Amino acid sequence: MRHDHLITSKQLSREDVELVLDRAAEIDADPERVADRHAGRLLGLLFFEPSTRTKMSFETAMKRLGGDVVDMGSIESSSVKKGETLADTVRVIEGYADALVLRHPQQGAAKMASEYVDVPLVNAGDGAGHHPSQTMLDLYTIRENAGLEDLTIGIMGDLKYGRTVHSLAYALSNFDARQHFISPESLQLPREVVYDLHQQQGGTQIREHDSIEEVLPSLDVLYVTRIQRERFPDENEYQQVAGEYQIDAKTLEDASDDLTVMHPLPRVDEIAPEIDDTDYAAYFEQAHNGVPVRMALLDMLLESGGENDE
Amino acid sequence: MRHDHLITSKQLSREDVELVLDRAAEIDADPERVADRHAGRLLGLLFFEPSTRTKMSFETAMKRLGGDVVDMGSIESSSVKKGETLADTVRVIEGYADALVLRHPQQGAAKMASEYVDVPLVNAGDGAGHHPSQTMLDLYTIRENAGLEDLTIGIMGDLKYGRTVHSLAYALSNFDARQHFISPESLQLPREVVYDLHQQQGGTQIREHDSIEEVLPSLDVLYVTRIQRERFPDENEYQQVAGEYQIDAKTLEDASDDLTVMHPLPRVDEIAPEIDDTDYAAYFEQAHNGVPVRMALLDMLLESGGENDE
Amino acid sequence: MRHDHLITSKQLSREDVELVLDRAAEIDADPERVADRHAGRLLGLLFFEPSTRTKMSFETAMKRLGGDVVDMGSIESSSVKKGETLADTVRVIEGYADALVLRHPQQGAAKMASEYVDVPLVNAGDGAGHHPSQTMLDLYTIRENAGLEDLTIGIMGDLKYGRTVHSLAYALSNFDARQHFISPESLQLPREVVYDLHQQQGGTQIREHDSIEEVLPSLDVLYVTRIQRERFPDENEYQQVAGEYQIDAKTLEDASDDLTVMHPLPRVDEIAPEIDDTDYAAYFEQAHNGVPVRMALLDMLLESGGENDE
Repeated sequence: MRHDHLITSKQLSREDVELVLDRAAEIDADPERVADRHAGRLLGLLFFEPSTRTKMSFETAMKRLGGDVVDMGSIESSSVKKGETLADTVRVIEGYADALVLRHPQQGAAKMASEYVDVPLVNAGDGAGHHPSQTMLDLYTIRENAGLEDLTIGIMGDLKYGRTVHSLAYALSNFDARQHFISPESLQLPREVVYDLHQQQGGTQIREHDSIEEVLPSLDVLYVTRIQRERFPDENEYQQVAGEYQIDAKTLEDASDDLTVMHPLPRVDEIAPEIDDTDYAAYFEQAHNGVPVRMALLDMLLESGGENDE
Repeated sequence: MRHDHLITSKQLSREDVELVLDRAAEIDADPERVADRHAGRLLGLLFFEPSTRTKMSFETAMKRLGGDVVDMGSIESSSVKKGETLADTVRVIEGYADALVLRHPQQGAAKMASEYVDVPLVNAGDGAGHHPSQTMLDLYTIRENAGLEDLTIGIMGDLKYGRTVHSLAYALSNFDARQHFISPESLQLPREVVYDLHQQQGGTQIREHDSIEEVLPSLDVLYVTRIQRERFPDENEYQQVAGEYQIDAKTLEDASDDLTVMHPLPRVDEIAPEIDDTDYAAYFEQAHNGVPVRMALLDMLLESGGENDE
Repeated sequence: MRHDHLITSKQLSREDVELVLDRAAEIDADPERVADRHAGRLLGLLFFEPSTRTKMSFETAMKRLGGDVVDMGSIESSSVKKGETLADTVRVIEGYADALVLRHPQQGAAKMASEYVDVPLVNAGDGAGHHPSQTMLDLYTIRENAGLEDLTIGIMGDLKYGRTVHSLAYALSNFDARQHFISPESLQLPREVVYDLHQQQGGTQIREHDSIEEVLPSLDVLYVTRIQRERFPDENEYQQVAGEYQIDAKTLEDASDDLTVMHPLPRVDEIAPEIDDTDYAAYFEQAHNGVPVRMALLDMLLESGGENDE
C-alpha cells in the first residue's frame, strides 16, 4: 500500500485490504512489538460531529503505537464558530500533528481537506460518504470469524441511508461474496448502489429480500444495522418495521451454529441482549477490532507519509 | 488487597484501607520510582456527569504512573445520546482500556457496569451512592495530619445529602473514631446512616449537634461541607443556616492549635479565605492528595486485574 | 530569562525576547534533541474561554517536549459552575501539574491567579489584557521572514479592540521598528496605546493611516487582523469598511516582492484565498510557529520554575 491519505474504501484494491488485515492480525497477535513504534508522533483529531467509539478507538490505536493525540475538541469551543473554513482549519492543525483524522458532516469534506495538507489524512466519516476504517474493521471481523472466501452474508436493516452498509457491500464485492440485502421496501439499498455492485468485475452475487427467514439458514454472517425512527414520517409504520427487523433467540432458531452476528453499534433494540452471551455475537469483538485495524492503518500511513522515518 | 473492581468503600476492611494509604504514602515520598510503572497502559474515563477535580486527578494519577487515558468525553458528544445502554457502552470501551473509571448519576450504576467488564472498574461516584477514592483521600489526609488512632472529628454542614460524608463516616467507624455530626436539624444525618453506624462492631462513638461551639475545642479534625441553597424551599431560612455554618478566624478562636480543617471542595463561602494561609487549612493539600491515593489504587488494581504483568 | 510566570509581554526585555526566539529557532532546527526533555512532566490547561489553536499548540508543544497535559475541560463541565473562585481552582489544579496555562475572559485574571500558585503560570489571554506567547510567535515569524532590524511593518484592521495588535506594537517598540497603523477611524489604536508607544525609549516611529495604499510599497511586513461585524452598530457601515480592509492580489500589486503577509487567524475574508499560495503568505507558517515558540517558553519556565530538576 502506498497512499498518502485514506479517503474512501473504494481506493483500496483487494490486495491493499489484505495487506491491512494481515498487518492488523500481526499487531493483534503481538501488540507489545509495536508499543513504542511511533513514540513522539502526534495524531490530530478533528471531529466536526459527535463520535464516541470512532474517536476513542483512533486515540487508543495511536497511543497503543506509542504516540499521542491532539484533539481539536468540540466545534462549540473552536474557531469554526468564528467562521473559519475547513481548508484553513486543517492547514493550521497539520502544523501540530504528524497525521490527521477527520470526521465532518459534509460528503466530500475529507477529500477536499486532504488536498490542502501534506501530512496523511484519514477520513473517519464524511456525511453520507465514506468511513473506510469502519469497513476495514468489519472485513477484519468477518475474516476472523467466517473467512472472506466463499462467504454468504446477510446485511439487514436500514440499507438506504447506512453509509457503513454501502461501503461494506462495495468492499465485499472484491471478494466474490454472496450478499443478501434484507430490509423493508422503504429502506432498500439505493438503486445506484445496486447498479454499481452489479458492475463490479469480481462477480459478487446480490439478492434483495424483505424478510430474513428464507435466507437465514444459508448465512455465515448476519450484519444488523439500526433502523432510525426519524426516517419514518409515521410512528406506527416505524413500530411495525422495527419489530420485524429485530434479532432475538427465536429469530436465530434456524440459523447455522457457525453464524456470526455483527452490528456497527450503538444498537438500540435491533439485537436482543439475550444474544450477547451466545457464540453468535461478534459485535463487541467487532468494536474492539477497531483498535488493531486502526493501528495497522496509522502505522502504514505514518510510514509512507512520514518524513523522519529511518 | 485483592479486588477486581472498586465500587464502594464498604467493601474495604481496615487492613485494606491501611494497605492503600501505606502505598499512597510510599508513592508520595518517592513518585519517581513509579514514574514508568504502567507505561503503555490506558485508563478509560467514563464521566456521565460533570467533574473537574475527580476526573483530572485520576488522569494525573494515571499519567504520573507512566500510563495514559482515553476519555469518552461529554455525554453530549457520545453514543449515549443515541440511546445506548450503559452495559453496551462499558463493554465497548473496555476494549480500548486496561482499567475504567466511571461516574454516573444513578446509584448502583458502577456495580451494574462492573458485572459486564473484565478489566478493573473504579466507581468515581454513582449518584447518592459511593465514591470510594474520595473517602480514601480523606482518610489519607486525616492520617497525615492528625492520625487515625484516637481521633476526634467534627463533620459539619449538609449531612443529609452529602455522599462524601456518609462514606467517610462509615470508613471512620472502622477506626474507633469519636465522630461529632454538626448540622441544622433539616440537614441531619439520615436515621438509617446513624443506625448503621451504631451497629458497627468497632464501637465508634457518635454524637449529633446543631452548633459547633460545644465540641470545637475537643476536635482534632473539622470536616466542613457545603450547604446547598437548592435544598431550602425558603431563601431566608437558607441565609440564616448558611451564615451559622460558616468557618472564619473568629469561629476558630476556641479551637485547638493542632486542629486540621478539611473540605472536599469546591467551597463557596463555608470557609472564609482568611483561613487559607493558617496552619489549620488542609483542604488544598486534601485535593492534592487525590493524586498519590489514586495512583496507589490504580497501581493495585492494574496489578491484580492486569493480564500482561510479569 | 528568570521568570516564574509569564503574564505580559511587557515584562520581557529585548534580551529576554531574543533569548526565547533563539531557543525556539534551536528547537525548530532540531526538535528531536528535546523530544524527551520533559518526560513525566504535566502541563495543566485551564481555558475558561473557547480556543482552538492556542490550546492545541500549547498541548502540542508540551507533548513535543516529551511531557503531557491535564485539561480542566470546558467550564460547563467544571466546578466553576458551582461557584468556585479562580483562586481556589488554580490552587487545586496546581497540585496536578508542573506548570499551568490559563486563558480567562477577565483582564488581570492571570496576574491574580499567579499570586496563588507555586508552579509557573503562562497567561494565554486575559480578556482585553495580554497574550504574550502570541506576541512571541508573531515576533518569531517576523524575524524568520523579514528580520527584526530596520523593520517597516503595517498593522491593519481592528486596532481598537485587538489585544494581539497592542501587544505586538509594544514588543516591536523595543526593536526600533517603523510601525504604520492602518484602520478605519472608528477602529483606530486607542489614544493611550499611541501615547505609551511614543514614550518608549527605543524611539520606534509610529504613523496612523486610513488607507493602505500610501504605505504598502515601503512595507516589509503587513500584519492583517479581522474586523468584527459586532463592533459596528450599523451593518452598512460594516460592509463598507470590511470591503476596504481586505487584501487580495490586486491590493498587493504595488507591494514589495519581499513583503510578508501575516494574520493571527482565524480569518474570515480579510485575506483572499488567492494569496495563500503566493510567497507573501506567512500566516499558516505563523500558526505553526506557535509550537517551537511555546516549546521554548515552556522549556525555560519548567527549567527555572521546576523543583525536581537535577
